[in-house]
Amino acid sequence: MKQQKISSPSFFIGKSADGLISFGSGQPDLTPPPQIFRGINTMKMFTYGPVHGNEDLRQALAQKYPGARKENFVITNGASEALDLTLRAISQPHAKVLLPKPYYYSYPHNVRLASMTPVYYKLEQGKINITTFAKAIRGCRAVIINSPSNPTGTVQEISTLKKIEILAKQLGVYIISDEVYKDLIYVRKNYLLKGPHVLTINSFSKTFAMCGLRVGYLYSTDREVVERVIEIKTHTSMNTNVMAQHMARGALRVPQSVINKQTAIWRARRDYIYQGLVDLGLDVWKPEGAFYVFPKFKNPNKVIIDLYDKYKIIAYDGTWFGDPTRVRFSYALDLEKITEGLRRLKMYLEKEYRG
Amino acid sequence: MKQQKISSPSFFIGKSADGLISFGSGQPDLTPPPQIFRGINTMKMFTYGPVHGNEDLRQALAQKYPGARKENFVITNGASEALDLTLRAISQPHAKVLLPKPYYYSYPHNVRLASMTPVYYKLEQGKINITTFAKAIRGCRAVIINSPSNPTGTVQEISTLKKIEILAKQLGVYIISDEVYKDLIYVRKNYLLKGPHVLTINSFSKTFAMCGLRVGYLYSTDREVVERVIEIKTHTSMNTNVMAQHMARGALRVPQSVINKQTAIWRARRDYIYQGLVDLGLDVWKPEGAFYVFPKFKNPNKVIIDLYDKYKIIAYDGTWFGDPTRVRFSYALDLEKITEGLRRLKMYLEKEYRG
Repeated sequence: MKQQKISSPSFFIGKSADGLISFGSGQPDLTPPPQIFRGINTMKMFTYGPVHGNEDLRQALAQKYPGARKENFVITNGASEALDLTLRAISQPHAKVLLPKPYYYSYPHNVRLASMTPVYYKLEQGKINITTFAKAIRGCRAVIINSPSNPTGTVQEISTLKKIEILAKQLGVYIISDEVYKDLIYVRKNYLLKGPHVLTINSFSKTFAMCGLRVGYLYSTDREVVERVIEIKTHTSMNTNVMAQHMARGALRVPQSVINKQTAIWRARRDYIYQGLVDLGLDVWKPEGAFYVFPKFKNPNKVIIDLYDKYKIIAYDGTWFGDPTRVRFSYALDLEKITEGLRRLKMYLEKEYRG
Repeated sequence: MKQQKISSPSFFIGKSADGLISFGSGQPDLTPPPQIFRGINTMKMFTYGPVHGNEDLRQALAQKYPGARKENFVITNGASEALDLTLRAISQPHAKVLLPKPYYYSYPHNVRLASMTPVYYKLEQGKINITTFAKAIRGCRAVIINSPSNPTGTVQEISTLKKIEILAKQLGVYIISDEVYKDLIYVRKNYLLKGPHVLTINSFSKTFAMCGLRVGYLYSTDREVVERVIEIKTHTSMNTNVMAQHMARGALRVPQSVINKQTAIWRARRDYIYQGLVDLGLDVWKPEGAFYVFPKFKNPNKVIIDLYDKYKIIAYDGTWFGDPTRVRFSYALDLEKITEGLRRLKMYLEKEYRG
């Protein structure tokens, strides 16, 4: 039976078939580092851990953030829970939270689930226009920044991010900075947003291929928010899985050189798929981080249904991310599969889309 | 420095010292069963799992609940997240949720965090008076039942529970049944609350000594609530840790005879501490389930501070659970420690409390 419309990514979850090429899900296909497995065999008792997270893990994280202390961290069930708890912690009824458009598809849901109201400003070719932003931020309780971005693959300019820091500080607006792709940047090093009201969300999922283990964290020097997050988590999920925290501690022992090698793999894929899409004549910008390309398409929902039904390709409708003019392709798969996917996409474009 | 007041259990978290006897935390001291460790060494990839939980785990759970199907389960980060998600799923602004008094200390927080309002009815010696209950339930959106109960250690009568099923069905009120102590009952088998609007919360923590691994679940035949819970979890935490779910699957292979042997250990401890407290002349009922005794004390906050400061005993103020006339003792520790704890308690009673 053919689909009339696919309304969310969850349609594709668990879909697998011989020959299916998935540009859908945003998770690494690389293997996790061996460091995460060390010592798990010696764990025999699993009593409750501290709600804010294991001390050794928070201590090790503090060493990765200049000037940070272990008290600035709360370990969570992935970045998702960090974001949910943070929004709940700063929630005021009907307060506005500023989101970019396009956005990571959960953001508007997260804001509403925390009893607040999402408001939007438009990115331009995936980039923040600071004039637009400066107008939109007024009257907001918080703003979510996501650089590198899912779904756009763009990285914001450091000069822009610094202006945002100043603006948010002046206006007393929280910056929630979702930096889960911080180790997947192809144009420069990550710029950590700083300031008294910056609430940084991060995760072990993307850097260390640990998505299913669900370890993320909040980092902030705002004591009040950190304490409120811990208080809420005490009632809503208690400690994050202690074994997964042990594995995350192991992950932090991975040398930077290994992470750099991974980034090189991602960059090669980025170059390859970007050039492939350009060669197909698609309107697309060059991704600067994460593992998504976001080409323009007419009627994206029809495109992704046709691609799935007739060409065994999974791609995501940009509409789910707030942009009804584009389709998101994740390139978290090997070059051979990307090649085959591009071959099929070419057939689709020639035979149907432009036919 | 002496404490003036201790306002929540979190004061005691992480407290340890030579000779400290903790009747505080509610977690098993027994070892987890060997079944949970099988196969974890072969897990090498940790991609996202289904948000509602691994199919094999939900399938195995369905076999434990008469008439259940795997679609009736959502695997969560412990019972805490199951409760949080369930309350958020049924939330309506200012709706009332009926709680017993005394209650598990997180319940009022959970209700408020889901933008609803807790209302209370009084238990009588830890038991539900159905007349009181029938009046209190009117106008509520949901009621939380917790049998066996933390902190009272009581198990509700089956006849009472059946009346509650009828009442809730007639009034269209959700029953959230927190049955995390279902395998720790000394007076009969667990009675699973049933009905179209019953939302059962459970956990692997207590039965299998897996608290720190955080695996719990929602079981319900109410499709609408189950789907809403999955939708919320998609945005707030995604799948529960896939390795912990694998371990929970292993736990379900533990034969009933082993669980029965554990229950016998808990019963022996229950008998021992109950008789000990009676011999000390304390006003206390005999616990029927879980691992808590709840004797009467004047000025419980002073009692727990004195016990901690001068006798190296941790016990919890009943006030934290909505009863300012009692102190909660967890007997999740071995008979030797219980004996020593009772010896010190006797000294305290003779020298100070009654002195």
